[in-house]
Amino acid sequence: MRSSQYLLSTLKETPSDAEIVSHQLMLRAGMIRKVAAGLYTWTPTGLRVLKKVERVVREEMERINALEILMPMVQPADLWQESGRWDDYGPELLRIKDRNERDFLLGPTHEEIISELVRKEVSSYKQLPLTLFQIQTKFRDEIRPRFGVMRAREFMMKDAYSFHLTDESLQQAYDEMYDAYCRIFQRLGLDFRPVIADTGTIGGHASHEFHVLAGSGEDAIAFSDGSDYAANVEMAEALAPSGERAAPSQDKQVNDVTGHEVSAFLQPLAVDAQQAVQCTLVKASDDVESEAVMLVWRADHELNTIKAEKLPQVATPLQVLDSEKLMGCHAAFIGPVNASMPVIVDRSAAALADFACGANKQGQWLTGVNWDRDASISAVEDIRNVVTGDPSPCGKGTLQIARGIEVGHIFQLGKKYSNAMKVGVLSETGKHETLTMGCYGIGVSRVVAAAIEQFHDDRGINWPTELAPFEVAIVPMNMHKSARVQKVANDLYQQLRDAGFDVLFDDRKERPGVMFTDMELIGVPHQIVIGERNLDEEMVEYQSRSDRDKQKMPITDVLGFLNQTLRNA
Amino acid sequence: MRSSQYLLSTLKETPSDAEIVSHQLMLRAGMIRKVAAGLYTWTPTGLRVLKKVERVVREEMERINALEILMPMVQPADLWQESGRWDDYGPELLRIKDRNERDFLLGPTHEEIISELVRKEVSSYKQLPLTLFQIQTKFRDEIRPRFGVMRAREFMMKDAYSFHLTDESLQQAYDEMYDAYCRIFQRLGLDFRPVIADTGTIGGHASHEFHVLAGSGEDAIAFSDGSDYAANVEMAEALAPSGERAAPSQDKQVNDVTGHEVSAFLQPLAVDAQQAVQCTLVKASDDVESEAVMLVWRADHELNTIKAEKLPQVATPLQVLDSEKLMGCHAAFIGPVNASMPVIVDRSAAALADFACGANKQGQWLTGVNWDRDASISAVEDIRNVVTGDPSPCGKGTLQIARGIEVGHIFQLGKKYSNAMKVGVLSETGKHETLTMGCYGIGVSRVVAAAIEQFHDDRGINWPTELAPFEVAIVPMNMHKSARVQKVANDLYQQLRDAGFDVLFDDRKERPGVMFTDMELIGVPHQIVIGERNLDEEMVEYQSRSDRDKQKMPITDVLGFLNQTLRNA
Repeated sequence: MRSSQYLLSTLKETPSDAEIVSHQLMLRAGMIRKVAAGLYTWTPTGLRVLKKVERVVREEMERINALEILMPMVQPADLWQESGRWDDYGPELLRIKDRNERDFLLGPTHEEIISELVRKEVSSYKQLPLTLFQIQTKFRDEIRPRFGVMRAREFMMKDAYSFHLTDESLQQAYDEMYDAYCRIFQRLGLDFRPVIADTGTIGGHASHEFHVLAGSGEDAIAFSDGSDYAANVEMAEALAPSGERAAPSQDKQVNDVTGHEVSAFLQPLAVDAQQAVQCTLVKASDDVESEAVMLVWRADHELNTIKAEKLPQVATPLQVLDSEKLMGCHAAFIGPVNASMPVIVDRSAAALADFACGANKQGQWLTGVNWDRDASISAVEDIRNVVTGDPSPCGKGTLQIARGIEVGHIFQLGKKYSNAMKVGVLSETGKHETLTMGCYGIGVSRVVAAAIEQFHDDRGINWPTELAPFEVAIVPMNMHKSARVQKVANDLYQQLRDAGFDVLFDDRKERPGVMFTDMELIGVPHQIVIGERNLDEEMVEYQSRSDRDKQKMPITDVLGFLNQTLRNA
Repeated sequence: MRSSQYLLSTLKETPSDAEIVSHQLMLRAGMIRKVAAGLYTWTPTGLRVLKKVERVVREEMERINALEILMPMVQPADLWQESGRWDDYGPELLRIKDRNERDFLLGPTHEEIISELVRKEVSSYKQLPLTLFQIQTKFRDEIRPRFGVMRAREFMMKDAYSFHLTDESLQQAYDEMYDAYCRIFQRLGLDFRPVIADTGTIGGHASHEFHVLAGSGEDAIAFSDGSDYAANVEMAEALAPSGERAAPSQDKQVNDVTGHEVSAFLQPLAVDAQQAVQCTLVKASDDVESEAVMLVWRADHELNTIKAEKLPQVATPLQVLDSEKLMGCHAAFIGPVNASMPVIVDRSAAALADFACGANKQGQWLTGVNWDRDASISAVEDIRNVVTGDPSPCGKGTLQIARGIEVGHIFQLGKKYSNAMKVGVLSETGKHETLTMGCYGIGVSRVVAAAIEQFHDDRGINWPTELAPFEVAIVPMNMHKSARVQKVANDLYQQLRDAGFDVLFDDRKERPGVMFTDMELIGVPHQIVIGERNLDEEMVEYQSRSDRDKQKMPITDVLGFLNQTLRNA
């Protein structure tokens, strides 16, 4: 590609409305342009990268025998009414009416359409297992679209769906998909983690998210420094402290405190947060006789509401009750001593001796409290978020916390949709069997932004080669004044193109500084600089975008060097 | 691809709701499935074909340096308000509201979005000319979606847009696009015609439609049997008959006729339709003093309202006036004799002598009428549709009429959008210049259906090789009973795949008849049949889908034969 015939659209200034680096750089590098909130045009440079992601994703889907299809973006309401999601889905689902006032929607996902297809086209166990995928535009009417394509309303997604007679077959497809996702993100050169994810209210069997690690990520991920273990912080198990609980050594004492924040009480009491507990009252499930249960955790930890909600004693969804009404004091003063409801204690909190807690009386905290002697435990559970330094639940290493950007999600859906929509086949024994289902997504456009979050510096984007819009840039210096530079540049361009490289030949009448700045901003990994002085020795200069390595080399060596560097050939 | 791992989804019966062959065969061959009216899922076989069209289109766009981008499908109303199309576009434009009650639409085309991009990103003449394209899902809320993907609501389109400083530059891009379109349809193996098209009310400079010829086509195309000339019937010029008009030989006579149909009058009068004229009164333009003008054409021809509307004497849009009110008789009795308004006569009608026409009196027709002697001509114009046998307006050959399916359209838009949306640049002399624009579309999904209309027989689809979902089918006979057949089939499959062929290996446990029927229905152009008997001689049988040519060949010759047949190698 000659840049004179290309639409570079680079910007010198950082647009003021772009909050995160990938959004800023995608605008500055001329990859996207905003059309409206959450709606973007992918300009040539951006689309080149997007297509590269798409190609790798497609190849790896085909490798595991997933069949590509294309479902409509506009979907009829009736199928969503059948699955129940027409009512359940929030306003992110853009409901529309056609010219005949019939209900449709813009697809944020395609479980209903694929279920409809499979229940009609698949009738025998012989056609199973079956995995179908598409790479397609999706729409989600985000309340606050932001961060460019990271959280856009219209976006590109690869969604795959698999259908099975048995859980074993689903597990096998799930494992293959897991491996395919790992290969995809590896090939794209990304630092990523597959993390154990919450299966949420759908109640599926297993789920992993794939996160690209980046400081700007919205999700916190716990991963072991001694193994492959990684999980969403919400999901990672906090193990019980090892060893026995210490014996009581202090007497229980009542203290007056001021304010309404636990953190404010502790310093005057000379108590470390690790020696104090916090409590909250939540609605009990129907299995429990009391209206409330008390949750107790160490004051230096955070309550994990997802874990708490899964406890059989706790009502779903989790509902915090008014302590004033129930106990006659502000929540900051609640404590387990003489509690009138079941007390569920986090593993770490249960290991404390001589700890501090609320006195169930406004303005008073207790110190020197000890379990059993002063307060009863109904159950010990894992109800807190893990923190850096916790032992890994896999048994190897300790946990680190990193931030991640979710770019993929695989999920064993089970029979949620196939029950609702009656997706089944005749089994080998002639019995009608409802299918079990998996779904697997990759945010194709999001991957582009996530890669930039991971690979950038103050000069712009530093793409892994597999993702770069161009592999090689030819940068001729003052070509318009030198016939010799022009000839060498043109010849080299022809030679590299013929060899199959993705080359950007910067033939604009621009100063060298402008060209270098642009090539570095859009992140061309390899640059060949052609200047008069080096041509006296039949040499050109090679520059690497990633390590700024510069070396002179004979013109005749360039092709071989690039073949070796880029193709290992 | 092994058919046991594939979703063939072929149907034996022709679905009753499919009216045209391509729709029937796309359903029967398992290429598409209906989701709702005008909304389809492209199943694996269909998508394979669609992708092949897409690939050829993309390659030819890139060959002429068009740059690929991707614009959003959901578009904000404000840009369409700026261009005026928000109000002008009919209910085919699906207008929607987002969660904040802001107006959006589903894009049927992208002139506004591209104009917005170019006015922001292109500021200098140095960046021109520029051609951008995308291959993307479009939505048009057809009042009566039908014929499968031929007239769907959601469809795949390649749309390109070019921007220029001068008309010459636009013409050059237009010509390059014209050639690219010819190459695309040639490569796809289609019998097509580029036809001169109406530029409609936009008033652009030039326009061609690309039609695939097929009896089921919605459009009538006139083309010369002696040259490349082709035009929409509405557009083709009807030349004046050669030679002088004959001198009057009959006296004008008044005749009583019954009924209200011109065709009913002529037989009793013993007048041939070629010797009679029909007339209508239409509203005159402001340039004409009279309220109406009379249009006159030969009774065996059809009035061409598009041609008539373009006459300076005729008001736009064409408006037929009430003859009872103006002349006191039914329209069938109007005639040019003693007409009180300007009389515009078609070239063929103007060449008549001794003709018949209405007498401007209820129940009366005249015979033996002659121009000049009995009636005045205000102007002679081309206002009829051409018919088979007319001389070609190009001067070579005579016209034939065929039916075509429009699959492409190129159009010199001029400044319609760039004026409305202020798309301009600074010229070389520093002056602000409004750009001129071209737009160029191909109905990618429609091409698939059109190809089937052209290439099918009673056994199914007979694809040109470039479009076929698979190039080669391996059909093993009773493989599950013969280890020898199985081994040869497997080995051949591996060999052909390694050689880069798109192979469908029919490894289902089905009777040979079922396999043949399916392979012929989906239209695999080349089949290799492997059976026990031929294996005794180390032979297999080759079958061509198109000419049913069958030949035995040694197993070892298959690869070479296919390389020669398919790759000319």
